[in-house]
Amino acid sequence: MNFCSHCGGVVNLAIPEGDNLPRHVCQRCGTIHYLNPKLVVGCVAEWNGQILLCRRSIAPRYGLWTLPAGFMENGETTSEAAIRETLEEACARIEIGPLFSLVNVPHINQVHLFYRARLVDTGFAAGRETLATALFSEEAVPWQDLAFQSVTLCLRAYFADRLARHFSFHEEDLQPHRG
Amino acid sequence: MNFCSHCGGVVNLAIPEGDNLPRHVCQRCGTIHYLNPKLVVGCVAEWNGQILLCRRSIAPRYGLWTLPAGFMENGETTSEAAIRETLEEACARIEIGPLFSLVNVPHINQVHLFYRARLVDTGFAAGRETLATALFSEEAVPWQDLAFQSVTLCLRAYFADRLARHFSFHEEDLQPHRG
Repeated sequence: MNFCSHCGGVVNLAIPEGDNLPRHVCQRCGTIHYLNPKLVVGCVAEWNGQILLCRRSIAPRYGLWTLPAGFMENGETTSEAAIRETLEEACARIEIGPLFSLVNVPHINQVHLFYRARLVDTGFAAGRETLATALFSEEAVPWQDLAFQSVTLCLRAYFADRLARHFSFHEEDLQPHRG
Repeated sequence: MNFCSHCGGVVNLAIPEGDNLPRHVCQRCGTIHYLNPKLVVGCVAEWNGQILLCRRSIAPRYGLWTLPAGFMENGETTSEAAIRETLEEACARIEIGPLFSLVNVPHINQVHLFYRARLVDTGFAAGRETLATALFSEEAVPWQDLAFQSVTLCLRAYFADRLARHFSFHEEDLQPHRG
């Protein structure tokens, strides 16, 4: 951040009065610009015991598989974000369930949320940021070709809970070296 | 948003290619500036059956009572944010528990998270944004003087779960008119 989005003035890093962290402060109008983590929201959508995965057509992790998920938008709820992202990335309509997993990814300033969901039908297809979509049984999940550690953690917890016939809410924190 | 925080150029609202929503796009360097919801994180901290509340010394809702909570910072996890905010607002040290409540507040682009927690000691005190801190039994909670609807929802669910001797994770969406 170099310039003030409000007045166009030059922004410097400084600790505002009463604060304890350096912030981007406009040298002209004094506006303090805070930077905060972003929410990435998606779902584990099931159909006859199989899970919907998307093969990414964009960076990062081009060509690797992921759960349908993306950045939450202003004006929507977390469950609305999961429904929208699943429609955009996999053209898939879902019946949304409870929140299943929260994964902190602090080194990239993100919090990932994954809902449980059921596909309404099998009319899914690759969306704009997707090369291919497919249903995978637990045994067929391409574990070595998953795009993100948060997706791996979520799916491992999902299959473990499903085996135990009891789904609970899971929270985990990722470390930088684990991506 | 009027100016590009990267180059200082004028920003206009436009729908980028491949997108479906208007974004703030720099007319000089082309940078697309996305606006995303912010996370507000706090806790329900208990001591001998009583709950820690803070009386706000800042806008909005000056003078009303709230759970210790605030905006999550870059570089931290959600539980770290709850611990930090409780220390900042109530000078209180906590032993953090599981995530208890997620409340969507889409009309102000916020997602509120509340953890369960136990106070480590009773050495709490009003922080910088707080007029007073106090412990309240369920019967003594100032329900009519709570600052935010998300806090009311969280506390009602908390006391109901405590009565039932079973805490589960709660998710709710607020409507604009309910603030």
